[in-house]
This record gives sequence, C-alpha cells and structure tokens, in this order.
Amino acid sequence: MTEFLQVVTSDELRRRLSGFPRLSSECVHIDETQGRIVAEDVLAPENLPERPRSTVDGYAVRAADTFGASESTPSLLEVTGAVEMGQQPSIAVEPGKAIEIPTGGFLPAGADAIVMVEYTDRMDASHIEVSRPVTVKANVLDTGEDVQAGAAILPAGRCIRPQELGLLAALGILEVPVYRQARVAVISTGDEIVPIERQPGPGQVRDANGHSVAALVRAMGAEAICFEIVPDSEAALRCVFETAMEQADVVVLSGGSSVGMRDLVVDVVAGLPGVEILAHGVAIRPGKPALFARRNGKAIFGLPGHPVSALIVAQVFLAPFLKYVQGAPLERGPLGSRISAVLTTSMHSTIGLEEYIRVRLIRDADGRFEAHPVFGKSSMLSTMARADGLLVVPSQAEGLCQGEVVEVVLT
Amino acid sequence: MTEFLQVVTSDELRRRLSGFPRLSSECVHIDETQGRIVAEDVLAPENLPERPRSTVDGYAVRAADTFGASESTPSLLEVTGAVEMGQQPSIAVEPGKAIEIPTGGFLPAGADAIVMVEYTDRMDASHIEVSRPVTVKANVLDTGEDVQAGAAILPAGRCIRPQELGLLAALGILEVPVYRQARVAVISTGDEIVPIERQPGPGQVRDANGHSVAALVRAMGAEAICFEIVPDSEAALRCVFETAMEQADVVVLSGGSSVGMRDLVVDVVAGLPGVEILAHGVAIRPGKPALFARRNGKAIFGLPGHPVSALIVAQVFLAPFLKYVQGAPLERGPLGSRISAVLTTSMHSTIGLEEYIRVRLIRDADGRFEAHPVFGKSSMLSTMARADGLLVVPSQAEGLCQGEVVEVVLT
Repeated sequence: MTEFLQVVTSDELRRRLSGFPRLSSECVHIDETQGRIVAEDVLAPENLPERPRSTVDGYAVRAADTFGASESTPSLLEVTGAVEMGQQPSIAVEPGKAIEIPTGGFLPAGADAIVMVEYTDRMDASHIEVSRPVTVKANVLDTGEDVQAGAAILPAGRCIRPQELGLLAALGILEVPVYRQARVAVISTGDEIVPIERQPGPGQVRDANGHSVAALVRAMGAEAICFEIVPDSEAALRCVFETAMEQADVVVLSGGSSVGMRDLVVDVVAGLPGVEILAHGVAIRPGKPALFARRNGKAIFGLPGHPVSALIVAQVFLAPFLKYVQGAPLERGPLGSRISAVLTTSMHSTIGLEEYIRVRLIRDADGRFEAHPVFGKSSMLSTMARADGLLVVPSQAEGLCQGEVVEVVLT
Repeated sequence: MTEFLQVVTSDELRRRLSGFPRLSSECVHIDETQGRIVAEDVLAPENLPERPRSTVDGYAVRAADTFGASESTPSLLEVTGAVEMGQQPSIAVEPGKAIEIPTGGFLPAGADAIVMVEYTDRMDASHIEVSRPVTVKANVLDTGEDVQAGAAILPAGRCIRPQELGLLAALGILEVPVYRQARVAVISTGDEIVPIERQPGPGQVRDANGHSVAALVRAMGAEAICFEIVPDSEAALRCVFETAMEQADVVVLSGGSSVGMRDLVVDVVAGLPGVEILAHGVAIRPGKPALFARRNGKAIFGLPGHPVSALIVAQVFLAPFLKYVQGAPLERGPLGSRISAVLTTSMHSTIGLEEYIRVRLIRDADGRFEAHPVFGKSSMLSTMARADGLLVVPSQAEGLCQGEVVEVVLT
C-alpha cells in the first residue's frame, strides 16, 4: 500500500487551484449567455435612450406653462395632438399647448417636461387643466441618461443575468465576449464498476459517480464528456488519460485514489510526462483520499471511488473550480445558499480534519431552522439524498455543541 | 383610458396563482433530470448494497477472533487471501484467519466484521497482528442498510440534485417520473418595438423584454418559445394569442397592459372566450400595471411594456409560478439567495404598495454586507444591471431607516 504523499489543507488546496489560468473567451449570441461571465468590458455603442422619452403616461408640455398651477388655480392647456408609439412626433408643443404622450413615448419638439395624467383634468376634447407645476425634465428620461454611449455597461467578470441580457438587447448588442464553458472528462475507474444499464454480477456495483459527477458538472454550466468505465489496468488508464486530456479542459476520475490495495490511478497520473501533483490527500472528511494534479495547464481531479466521498470532494473543490475557470472568483465550496440554523445534536470532530456533516433542515415553532444531522453511516449514499445541505466543521474545532448556531450550505 | 379593474395585493395574487394545476409528468432518463421535480414516489427495486460490503480498507475477520486484542496483547491472524474488486470472494474466512479487503469490497463467507488496516501490523507475508477488538458488523455496510428494497427513496415533490441522481444510478433506475418542463410563449407587443437586429427608426426601441424574459424563463428550467413582435392591432394580437395558447402552457406578453393611451392587450385578453381575469393591476412598485388571467387552465401573464417593470413582475410572479407548475412549492418571489445587510440610506415608501428597491451589496470593514440603493430613475434599465439584488419594502411600511438590517434577495 502506498502512503499519502502530500496531504494539504482545504485552504492550501484552494490556493493551489487558484494558480490555474482561466479558460479562453469566445463571442456568443446574447440569448446563450445567461449565467456566463463577461471576459472583456462591454461598451455601449450608443446612448440609451437615443432621444428623450417620457417615463409616465401624461402630457408633453413646456414646464413654464405649469408654473404656479395648483388645485385651486390650475393651468389650462390646449391639447393639439398625441404622440403615437413607434412614430416620430410630427407636431411640436407650442406655448400654452400640450400633446398627449404614453409611457416610453419620445418627446415632441418644443416640450421640455411631462405632466402625469394623474395631475390633469380633461375639460373637453381639446383642453386639460394641470393642477401641479412640473420642473424642466420632469418625468423625462434624457438622452443617454440610462446609458452613455461608450460607457462600460458590463465590466469583465460580471455574470450575465436576465437584467444584463435585457440591457444588451436594448442597446442592440447581439454578441458578447464570455469565458468558454469548460469541457470536463468524467471517467469512472474500477474492475467492480458496471454501467447502470447492466445488472451487476457478484462483487460488482453500478457506476453512480459517472452520473452524479456529470450532473454536478452540467449544473456548473460546464460540458460533461462521459467516458466508458475503465478497468484497473495501467495500460487502459494511461490510454484513456491521453484521450481525455486531448478532448477536455479538466479531467475528473473517480476510484483508485485511496491508500488501498490498489492505487493505479495515482501511479498512472504520477507517471504522466510533465505532470505536477498538487495534492494527494486533502485534510477533509469524508473525501480525504483525493488526488489533484496539473499537466499542460490542465487540472486533473482524482476523486475517491466511494460515491459519498466522490460527490463531496466534487462539491467542495470541483464545482467552485469549474466556476473559476469559467470566469468567476474562486469560492469556498460547497456552493449554494447559506442558511443559519440551530444544531440539534452535539457532534465530535477530529482536530486537523475539516468535516462535512450532512444535515436536514426543519423549521421550529418560531420559524427558525434547526439543523438535524442525518442518521446513518457516512458511506451510505442515501444520507446524501436525505440531507438538505452540508455543515462545515472547521479543522481546528473539536466539535460543535447542541444549540449552537451554525451555517448550512444548501447543496 | 381604462381603469385598473381588479388591483390585488401580491399575497392575494399568489393565492390566485396557487389555484393553477401543476403540469403533467413524464418519464425522463436520469441524466436529464438534474433540477427537475419528482412527480411520484420512486421506490427502490432492490437492496443497496445487495450483499454486505466493507466501508474501510482492512481485513475481513471473525469478530470473536479479535475480542480482548490490545496494543500490548494483539491477536495474531493468518492472512489467507485478498478480496479482488469486481469478483465474488472465492475463499471463506476460517477461525483464526483473515482476508485482505479494500473499501467497498464484498464480505467473504465466514467473515462478520472488518478490522481497519490502521489497527493492524503486518508481521510477515501471511500474518497480521490486530491491536483493537471489533464488534460484529464493525466497518460493514449490511445488505439493504443504505436502501431497503421497496423503500420510497425519492418522495414525490423532491428536487433531483446530483446526489439523488447518484442514488438512482446506484440502484439501476434509468428513468424517473418528473413534472414536465413548462413551454412558455414569450411575446413582445407594441408598434414601437423592433427586433434587436434592426436599427430602431425615429420613435422606435429594441425588444429588450423578449430577450430578458426568455432568459428568465430558461433559468427556471422551462422552455421559452419566442414569438415575433406583435404590432398594436387587435386582430394581430388575437391571432397570435390563439397560436400561443395552443403551443404553450403559459403565455407571457409584455406591453400594453398599462392604464395608458392604449390597452389593446387588456381588451384582447378580456375578450377571449372563457377567460377569467385574475388581476389587472397588482399593488407593487414598480410593476403595478400587470395583467394576470386564466383560460382553459393555462396562465396568461401581461407584463408592463417597460423593461424594468416587466422584469420585476417576471421575477416576483412568473419565476416562482414556473417553478410551481413544474412541481415545486409556490414561493414568494423574487427567487434567489437571501442575504442580511445594513441599509445605508433611509427610504420613503408608499403605504399600500409593496416596493422593490434595487440595491448593491458592499462589504464593510467588519465583513458585514451594506445595502446601497442604486442611484437613478426607476425606469433606467441600467439600474437593474448595476443592482446585486432586490430589497422588498412591505406594503404597510412607510419606509425603511438608515442602519436597519434588511433582507436582500440576490436576483
């Protein structure tokens, strides 16, 4: 049996992972950019709006015509027309006149303010009374007031949400430079592993990792390239590795990285030309027997073969890493909403190991969340499915006390 | 100009939206189920594991052979073989004997416990000393201990995450019944709206809503069916409506639902045979001029034409509604992580209107979040892109005070 050669803390591993370069960028149609990260500042090609527009339903006026207007002494204005949506206003607002205008309508010539319809009374077909004065530019969105031509509307590093997409659409920007989506090779190894379509024979189990890890990869916005299961053969492993490293940006294997009877994956990875082992063993539980390496600027993740450990290592390190190479800051995993909850049971923990406790969240009578550790052996895959999230016990803690307020990450 | 006929509160609107039926279910390959909601309880077809397995690297033994073992008086056992992964152990463990076994290996006959490798010393090629006793079943995952055959592993209503997917894979379940993804017709209306590829003429603007709303729809896991822009013509609107209601489960229009000069959308929707108006106007700001209707069990959302209002109404009501018809509980929108922050500026608010304030989050010197309201007119689309999230001011509040701790939803 081999020893773990380079056990590191999770912080140190994150530091080493932050040394990888980000992926290159590509220009993508805005409709495909939801959730992607902008790779270079995006500048506005024009003003928004291009010309002054009304922000309310009302009447375009000359502000001076409303000065002194009140409920008791309203200003009487003649209505000489209406702004039609989608057309340039053809008439101008003369002194003492007003033109009907809908929200978003472009200001007609002569007008310098809009009176909201709420502060007018229609006297007859062609006259209104205005009961409140407006200042110049009132209820007007001026040329370039929303966005100035040339302004950096989306700085590099910004994540594109529906609101950014709307802004790009409004400015007629059809494509933006975003970081490329990572191509991730997902490989399960082990003589005992069979495809999920097959009934396992004696001593065999189905390939859970290939499917759960691929799902996590896709949930990070990356592309999963799923390889066939590789038996415990050095030649087969070396061969699939070369293919995977050609096709993918990140190679994720599961199985074989433990200090068990077999450590073929470690041997094969360590023997690849030009490889640098970043960590063999990370001080977390579960998940300690994991392998992290770099070759030709590409990352190799060797997950433990056990489905629970494999998924936790993937949640804690792989998921944030994929977000990172796709342009986001490198966050501390696991990713997910963070909820404060009261721990219902005291827990022991080993000093020197960062522990990930599976918990269920239940609301108490006052609506606060209680964190209930999930019952069952840590090797049970069903405990992961029964848990709402993970609770991180820092490596320097001896444990957590019943009643303590803890932070749970919804995974 | 027409009046708002049925202004309702956001709570009342949610109550009315909760009256819609959920979509039907379909059987989907597990690799496509990430984020989908289980429609019927999924039962385990077999035990997991099928036979007892080791949870550690070590030696399969008869527990009784280790009773009384200690550092000073270890038990000496003869090693008679090793469990090979992927094969049925062919040899049995006799009294006084042990068989090497890796994590996940199936227990050989005769063994009833595993001694961890850490508590053994290899004396020579065929003998170990055991320095700690083990109890029966120690370090063993027993038949069905993870999952019992017939157990409901995923109850209806559960969202499928990578961990659920791993469990399904381990059990050989290839397809699961999940709620169908909503097909959502996204339609922009208005004579002034032009496709984003076209340079707007005088009085025209580009179709921001079609793209931002479609992005939000896709982010909810639903399918966006993007229609061509519809001019302000009753006949054209009625025609596109019939097509959309045939093709889609939910119809989302933007434009024309305001109490403005034009209210064609309201007229057309109200005139559809068998339509029920759920709300015309909702007591929120921005976003008040929105229309909600039901026809043949399908929902119609009439969003305001203004891009900011349209997106906020979509975030507050459409996004949770799509999650709901796809099987999730109906949540209070906007959806997203919730962060506590200290408000940096006092804000006035109108009693009777629930207000959505755009805020940026900035960490103060102590690492706490400050919520800074975004500067700029509420009609500016750029304010949405500059905001990290929305702060909800309840309808009964007169405002919020500087220094108050508020909850911000990251949108």
